[in-house]
Amino acid sequence: MKPVNLAEKLSTFSEHWSPKIVAQYNGNDVMVVKAQGEFVWHSHDDTDDLFLVLKGTMTIQMREGDVTLGAGEMFVVPAGVEHCPMAADEVHLMIIEPRNTPNTGDVATAVKKIEI
Amino acid sequence: MKPVNLAEKLSTFSEHWSPKIVAQYNGNDVMVVKAQGEFVWHSHDDTDDLFLVLKGTMTIQMREGDVTLGAGEMFVVPAGVEHCPMAADEVHLMIIEPRNTPNTGDVATAVKKIEI
Repeated sequence: MKPVNLAEKLSTFSEHWSPKIVAQYNGNDVMVVKAQGEFVWHSHDDTDDLFLVLKGTMTIQMREGDVTLGAGEMFVVPAGVEHCPMAADEVHLMIIEPRNTPNTGDVATAVKKIEI
Repeated sequence: MKPVNLAEKLSTFSEHWSPKIVAQYNGNDVMVVKAQGEFVWHSHDDTDDLFLVLKGTMTIQMREGDVTLGAGEMFVVPAGVEHCPMAADEVHLMIIEPRNTPNTGDVATAVKKIEI
C-alpha cells in the first residue's frame, strides 16, 4: 500500500522500448517506458493501447494520420489500428495494456515485461 | 484521432468530485477530476480504482493506512477496499474506472459522468 512515483521508477532503468510494470489495474499492466527512435509498425487486435506522455514529445504514426503528444497529453490507439510510435528525442511514457499483451503485437518479437 | 491534453480538459470546468470522461480504453472511462476537501468512504466491489495525481497533493484514506500522493504519483485502490480521498487544497487527477462505475460506490448517490 504505497504510492508509485512514476519519475522515480523511470530513473531506475535506461533502455528504450522496454516497458516496466509498476502497478496492476483490473488485469491490466500499468507500465512506464522510455522510448527514442522509431518502433515497429504493429497492431493489437484485441485491445486498445493507452499512451500518456510524462516527459518529452512523441508521434504515434498511424495509416490514417499521425498524432503528436507532448507532456501531459494522452491518446488511446483503438484495437486493430496499425501504429508505429516514434520519438526524435527520448520520451517518458505511462502506458496501459492488458496483462501479457506483446508490445510488438507479436509474442515472437515482444520484449519481456518485468515488474519494478 | 487527436491527442487529449489533460490540463486543457481540466481548465474547462471548476466543480469538485465530478469526473469528466476524456477517453475510452477497453470499456473503461479515462477521466479527469478536480477535488478538494473530503469525499465519502466507499468501496467498489467489482473494480480496482486507479488514481494519478497531475497537480497538487491528496491522501487516500483507507482503513489499514493512508497513502499520500503528489504530482506524478499514482495508486490503485484494490477492489473491495474501503477508501476516502481527501485533499486540503485543490488537486487535479486522472482516474480510470470501468464505464458506469458509480464514483461513490452507490448508483443512488453517484454523480453523472459526462464526456468533455
